[in-house]
Amino acid sequence: MRVMITGANGFVGRGLVLRLLADGVLRGQRIEALLLLDQSLQGFPEDKRIRRHCGSVTDAALIRRVIADGVDVVFHLVSVPGGAAEANYQLGYEVNLQASLELLHQLRNAASPPRVVYASSIAVYGADLPARMDEAAACLPQLSYASHKLIVETQLVDLARRGEVDGVALRLPGIVARPRQSRGLKSAFMSDLLHALAAGEPYVCPVSAQATAWWMSARCCVDNLVHAAQLQGELATRVVQLPVLQLSIEQVRDALVACFGEQRRALLSFAPEPELEALFGCYPPLRTPQAKAMGFHHDGSVAALLRNALDLPAAPRTRRPVPTLAGASS
Amino acid sequence: MRVMITGANGFVGRGLVLRLLADGVLRGQRIEALLLLDQSLQGFPEDKRIRRHCGSVTDAALIRRVIADGVDVVFHLVSVPGGAAEANYQLGYEVNLQASLELLHQLRNAASPPRVVYASSIAVYGADLPARMDEAAACLPQLSYASHKLIVETQLVDLARRGEVDGVALRLPGIVARPRQSRGLKSAFMSDLLHALAAGEPYVCPVSAQATAWWMSARCCVDNLVHAAQLQGELATRVVQLPVLQLSIEQVRDALVACFGEQRRALLSFAPEPELEALFGCYPPLRTPQAKAMGFHHDGSVAALLRNALDLPAAPRTRRPVPTLAGASS
Repeated sequence: MRVMITGANGFVGRGLVLRLLADGVLRGQRIEALLLLDQSLQGFPEDKRIRRHCGSVTDAALIRRVIADGVDVVFHLVSVPGGAAEANYQLGYEVNLQASLELLHQLRNAASPPRVVYASSIAVYGADLPARMDEAAACLPQLSYASHKLIVETQLVDLARRGEVDGVALRLPGIVARPRQSRGLKSAFMSDLLHALAAGEPYVCPVSAQATAWWMSARCCVDNLVHAAQLQGELATRVVQLPVLQLSIEQVRDALVACFGEQRRALLSFAPEPELEALFGCYPPLRTPQAKAMGFHHDGSVAALLRNALDLPAAPRTRRPVPTLAGASS
Repeated sequence: MRVMITGANGFVGRGLVLRLLADGVLRGQRIEALLLLDQSLQGFPEDKRIRRHCGSVTDAALIRRVIADGVDVVFHLVSVPGGAAEANYQLGYEVNLQASLELLHQLRNAASPPRVVYASSIAVYGADLPARMDEAAACLPQLSYASHKLIVETQLVDLARRGEVDGVALRLPGIVARPRQSRGLKSAFMSDLLHALAAGEPYVCPVSAQATAWWMSARCCVDNLVHAAQLQGELATRVVQLPVLQLSIEQVRDALVACFGEQRRALLSFAPEPELEALFGCYPPLRTPQAKAMGFHHDGSVAALLRNALDLPAAPRTRRPVPTLAGASS
């Protein structure tokens, strides 16, 4: 079992690498090689299964070398985030669109189609969402990042139809808690809020207390990525809207306060930015019966979301402060 | 006014070139240059406005040369048809997907975004269509050709949102009457049926008498392409499902019989191919109020469709045979 991960050095990628090293098997087979691709690959454990390929996913020749000895499962995680891709269109076009198409093109193998798990995004739905959503919701991207995700989904589904790539696209919600001040990520406030209140620091939230978003911890996200790689047999769909926790900022604040103490409540103030509120603060209730039937899941509760996101112990539900938060963003 | 046409030598392209030469103006401005791009450009009239660029749309350097002196309107018509693209995936990928993305990328011009009219296709909806359809119908492509059309639509809409390309995609139905036995075109039976009965030749139809398709004459199609180029102001949508005539094969046969005489009825027999029937013979009624409000139109009636498609005189509705059909497919 040879597994490739693009964006291996990213926030989700690092968690996935550690998880796969710990599991040791995927789809019932021993993992022999973990082919990691990213611009920088520092700080991974010494492990003879790891093959480091430093470089850009836009380098088609590099991709050819990485997959030259065959690959069974590919996690295609790398992307230029929405805000950064909007500001630097050319970079987003090359990484999010062109490199993804080229990667899929190179992976075509009718004799033994690799399972490709693609990290798509809820950004594909755009703004002006309906009052309730389900897995049939229309996609009207409002960012180039989102358009390019939707395009790669379309291409993935076509190659799956042709039997050349065994693809599954997962539409990821806001993943927390990313490293603080993640640059170019318009939804960074979701993580920054968690870090600030957990650390006992003031935070000015750029969306309102009533703003609702779709949340998932990185740990839960990695679970779902691995589950997507494991799926066998006929798939009900190739484009999966992951189950999410739909939570308002005040619900998350209240859970943080329940976790870290009432004195943290006053640390949070609000200065809503209309554009951010429209794009990231108006996510309605979402039903995902198909994804749940396929075995995908969300964190389960806001308390579990915080435990998973901040690496807190699964403690009894008391309101004691957690002693240390070092490494909370791992 | 500089106008570029890709696939200028194609069936629709040639009609569009003649129409633009005759009109002489577009968007209220005199046409100074018609930049024609195709593999072969024989048989166009001698006209100093015509600039012939022989070559492939996949040649990015050629595209750069064609648009080097600026371009105001682009009709992007060229494509490898559905059947041919399915059989030769690489060719379809290069022409229908990669070349289209590259063309749009080169056309980006925030200071003066060119109007780009893109010939998309009803193939984007896929098979298993609902019993009734409207302009919000879901797209589930079942051919690579269709997936690539949908991808280019998505990219066009994003570049329009960014204000860099002033794009309009038209989803074309089956256009008749194409030259006989158009290779690689799975819907060629729609045109072949017309030619055969008009010429008094037997025809074995590969879909059933009850099969329904969406029809438009090439003349009407050219009208709509030009209309898309003329549209001014805020557009209600960037992806237009053209109005269509939804007609069964027997309705078309009856109209041909009414036109050419009862003895033509027996020329038509049926040997339905299930795959073709599923992909091209199950088009339901379609409502297009938005497109009609924007000024797009279908042929009006099956009789007008035949007149436009076969270049028949707009005769009184008698059942006399038409004397000659030479040049009927022009």
